Amino acid sequence: VTVTEKVDLAAALATFDEPFQPWIVARYNDNKVFVAKVRGEFVWHSHEDTDDFFLVLDGRLTIQLRDGDVELGPGEMFVVPAGVEHCPKADDEAHVLLIEPIGTPNTGDSTERDAAPEREL
Amino acid sequence: VTVTEKVDLAAALATFDEPFQPWIVARYNDNKVFVAKVRGEFVWHSHEDTDDFFLVLDGRLTIQLRDGDVELGPGEMFVVPAGVEHCPKADDEAHVLLIEPIGTPNTGDSTERDAAPEREL
Repeated sequence: VTVTEKVDLAAALATFDEPFQPWIVARYNDNKVFVAKVRGEFVWHSHEDTDDFFLVLDGRLTIQLRDGDVELGPGEMFVVPAGVEHCPKADDEAHVLLIEPIGTPNTGDSTERDAAPEREL
Repeated sequence: VTVTEKVDLAAALATFDEPFQPWIVARYNDNKVFVAKVRGEFVWHSHEDTDDFFLVLDGRLTIQLRDGDVELGPGEMFVVPAGVEHCPKADDEAHVLLIEPIGTPNTGDSTERDAAPEREL
């Protein structure tokens, strides 16, 4: 996928099933624009140097923060500020569009789980 | 709106009617995340120093490029590369989520139309 092609996000999400695997669909300046499926609970982590952009496309996503949960449905977005610990989870399955700088590990500063490789659809 | 609040994009779009006016709903690092209504044709322009992120939330958007048109429906996105001339239009009305660096005029290098002020919902 190059930046000069349009991306149908639902079609991109239909090409894989693995949860918590970021699939890059486009690039915006120095950022990767990616989709992921959230099923179950991820891992608590933070990104010291970058905000973390979440937009729910389908399903319901809970972004757990130390101060409380943010509950997102389709068409709802949230930006986790840099340095803020968070742990995404979905009781069923949620489809999410995310934006982070290229090279940012999806697990941030966590040592509990290996970072997923950056894969491009 | 601060970055620590969630944003319901449809609700944000329901609060205004003016076409081609960017309304900032969140910030992601040095970028503004904003929504806009496209009705009719905007103006040909380019942004020399930044890509331009478009995600259609509702309706149909045509991003005219000098090489041809990109047609986007709901859930479809496109990144206009930096320096590439483009002119968004919608025959009916399209609701769009956009991302650009803070301070980027929505009219880019165009002199045909005044840039809209950055307004925050």
